[in-house]
Amino acid sequence: MLCADKIEARSVEEMFINIDPIQAGGRLTPEAQKAVLAYSDGYSVCDNCLKPFRLDYIKKPPLSEFHEDCAKWLNMDAVRVVPGARRGFQAVASTLVEKGDPVILTALSHYTEFVSVEQSGGIPCEIPKDENNHITGENAAQKIEDVIKEYNKTPSLLFVEHADYQFGNIHDIKGVVKAAHSYDIPVLLNGAYTVGIMPVDGKDIGADFIIGSGHKSMAAPAPSGIIATTEEYAQKVFRTTQAKGDVTGRTFGIKEVEMMGCTLMGVTMAGLVASFPAVKKRVENWDTEIKHSRMVADALCSIEGTKCLSDMPREHTLTRINTIESFDKVAETHKKRGYFFSAELKKKGICGVIAGSTKVWKYNTFGLTDRQTMYLCDSFKEIAKENGLNVNE
Amino acid sequence: MLCADKIEARSVEEMFINIDPIQAGGRLTPEAQKAVLAYSDGYSVCDNCLKPFRLDYIKKPPLSEFHEDCAKWLNMDAVRVVPGARRGFQAVASTLVEKGDPVILTALSHYTEFVSVEQSGGIPCEIPKDENNHITGENAAQKIEDVIKEYNKTPSLLFVEHADYQFGNIHDIKGVVKAAHSYDIPVLLNGAYTVGIMPVDGKDIGADFIIGSGHKSMAAPAPSGIIATTEEYAQKVFRTTQAKGDVTGRTFGIKEVEMMGCTLMGVTMAGLVASFPAVKKRVENWDTEIKHSRMVADALCSIEGTKCLSDMPREHTLTRINTIESFDKVAETHKKRGYFFSAELKKKGICGVIAGSTKVWKYNTFGLTDRQTMYLCDSFKEIAKENGLNVNE
Repeated sequence: MLCADKIEARSVEEMFINIDPIQAGGRLTPEAQKAVLAYSDGYSVCDNCLKPFRLDYIKKPPLSEFHEDCAKWLNMDAVRVVPGARRGFQAVASTLVEKGDPVILTALSHYTEFVSVEQSGGIPCEIPKDENNHITGENAAQKIEDVIKEYNKTPSLLFVEHADYQFGNIHDIKGVVKAAHSYDIPVLLNGAYTVGIMPVDGKDIGADFIIGSGHKSMAAPAPSGIIATTEEYAQKVFRTTQAKGDVTGRTFGIKEVEMMGCTLMGVTMAGLVASFPAVKKRVENWDTEIKHSRMVADALCSIEGTKCLSDMPREHTLTRINTIESFDKVAETHKKRGYFFSAELKKKGICGVIAGSTKVWKYNTFGLTDRQTMYLCDSFKEIAKENGLNVNE
Repeated sequence: MLCADKIEARSVEEMFINIDPIQAGGRLTPEAQKAVLAYSDGYSVCDNCLKPFRLDYIKKPPLSEFHEDCAKWLNMDAVRVVPGARRGFQAVASTLVEKGDPVILTALSHYTEFVSVEQSGGIPCEIPKDENNHITGENAAQKIEDVIKEYNKTPSLLFVEHADYQFGNIHDIKGVVKAAHSYDIPVLLNGAYTVGIMPVDGKDIGADFIIGSGHKSMAAPAPSGIIATTEEYAQKVFRTTQAKGDVTGRTFGIKEVEMMGCTLMGVTMAGLVASFPAVKKRVENWDTEIKHSRMVADALCSIEGTKCLSDMPREHTLTRINTIESFDKVAETHKKRGYFFSAELKKKGICGVIAGSTKVWKYNTFGLTDRQTMYLCDSFKEIAKENGLNVNE
């Protein structure tokens, strides 16, 4: 039988330096932690919901203000909150993609983008990455041409990752947007790895949609996220319900179809809002984050046989590393096999590397202090030396 | 500018007896409150996610166990968690309803059911309520007949509320299921007001889908909920993605299309699981809840001019009351107008009645202790007497 006491207290962030690739940007701020305590109950943000009864109109707590400020911050016209970035993809695809439409994604698209296309009955078509693992405007234009020829139909939507989940590379978004817009294809920017950790300017980028993840990059509880768009597309994706009861004649006011009315009625909303001032501040420190990311990538690359698969020098905190010729060599003969690596990291107070991984793996340095960064660098090098690998210092 | 300090601590549940119609069942248990503290960070339940990388396979915390236990508890074959009951409606409608399909709902259906039908392109058709505000098998059968005649098509889905949001009446679900199944129409039971507060036996009811709300009735943070179904429909609604990258050849394993992969990756999931043992226990105390609900309805009805619009004697804790000839008469001449009522309740430590409401309003007694119930009864009567209304004691 399931017992509540099986839910042991989690203390990962208190006890360890956590370099998990997906968890770094979703660690709560102290402000959010406080809000979570106060707003943990079910419909906790609805105490003062007044006509017209919709989440983004609530004034206390200041949810309407958050919606406005968040749109301004991203330099977009309108924002709504959603239960995760994926639910933003779903809302857009469900609105713009008809059955049988080709939809452009990329060779680095996250599976949730594919699923949103599958749900709407679209046909996913990937822009290939170039030899540097980048998505370029040129390849986007070529793919659009190819797809139009093959399907005799202009794609109804294009998804592109601001920073992708595989390499953490920053892509040629402006080039991609330019290509898409020259065919009047709207662009959805997947900002799950950028919105909330680095500066994002919607008008500058030119995207029609910017989607962010609360639990991945905005220091908010799961599931949460935001969808930002232009006035033009807000009319479409945020359209209100037209449903009517055939017997009762009921209509349902200003509830938005793709949002299904309200989305985040409690703790997730409160956490997102409470973290927002700190999130706005932290994106201004992106230079420091990059400095830390470069220090760690350099430390790892100083270990003989190790290769960084992401762009060097690093321009993001998420990094993909190949240690087949270094730590995996150790694993071959180590009595703990591949588990030695995560075990030794854990002994040093570092977690977030999948247990058993010594070949190709990812880590994220976002949010580390100077001291933690140096300690992390030293720890990787120490583990290498202790296991007989050469380190070029 | 938005400031985190504008998120004032919320103390509604600590300071007041809260009879808000939608908040009563979503108040956290102490176990969930503890879990929320520990699992507040973004992707907090994903620390030990191993292959095949899906939320319902995670063993620590015991999420896979929760999924199994919850299915057993509801006497259904399979369960998934969703970001709110509405996302369960969406998953089912998106799977079963094709554009132009008639879909049966009821005159008491919640707007989120209508929206899910609208999203899938279906045509909502309401079963009328009878003179007692009930949805009956007879009316369901008649409506199905009428719809088949009008659209020359069998409805692809039927939604019915176990207890509706307007009156909190318990409907003739078995009759409705029988009618629907005789036309091979699958039935979705909206258990947002029942799953987690009263006993629900899926096999006994015969529904094909049972949908529950975490933040409304399972003492969990928002947004959360569950969708339970039979083996037959699990194949359909929980189908895995078939998407494939045309360039990379990537496929996406066992991610489920309608779930969009994973749904509740942190605090919402932890809260749902932590509350579950207490929730299972509390549904066994439904008799006590009914006793309390009846005491309060009786107390209100003892105030001259007051009418209960829900079934009497009460069979649920959500109740709709008409005080046009009692408290609204007072409001006509009171210097605070309609606000006197919520203000006087507040003075007595009672909240959850919409400020200004004195005509037709709803309350929910779920979770009150004996003492709180008696205090609530006395408070209503005291406010009546203090304002010159007769009370039949």
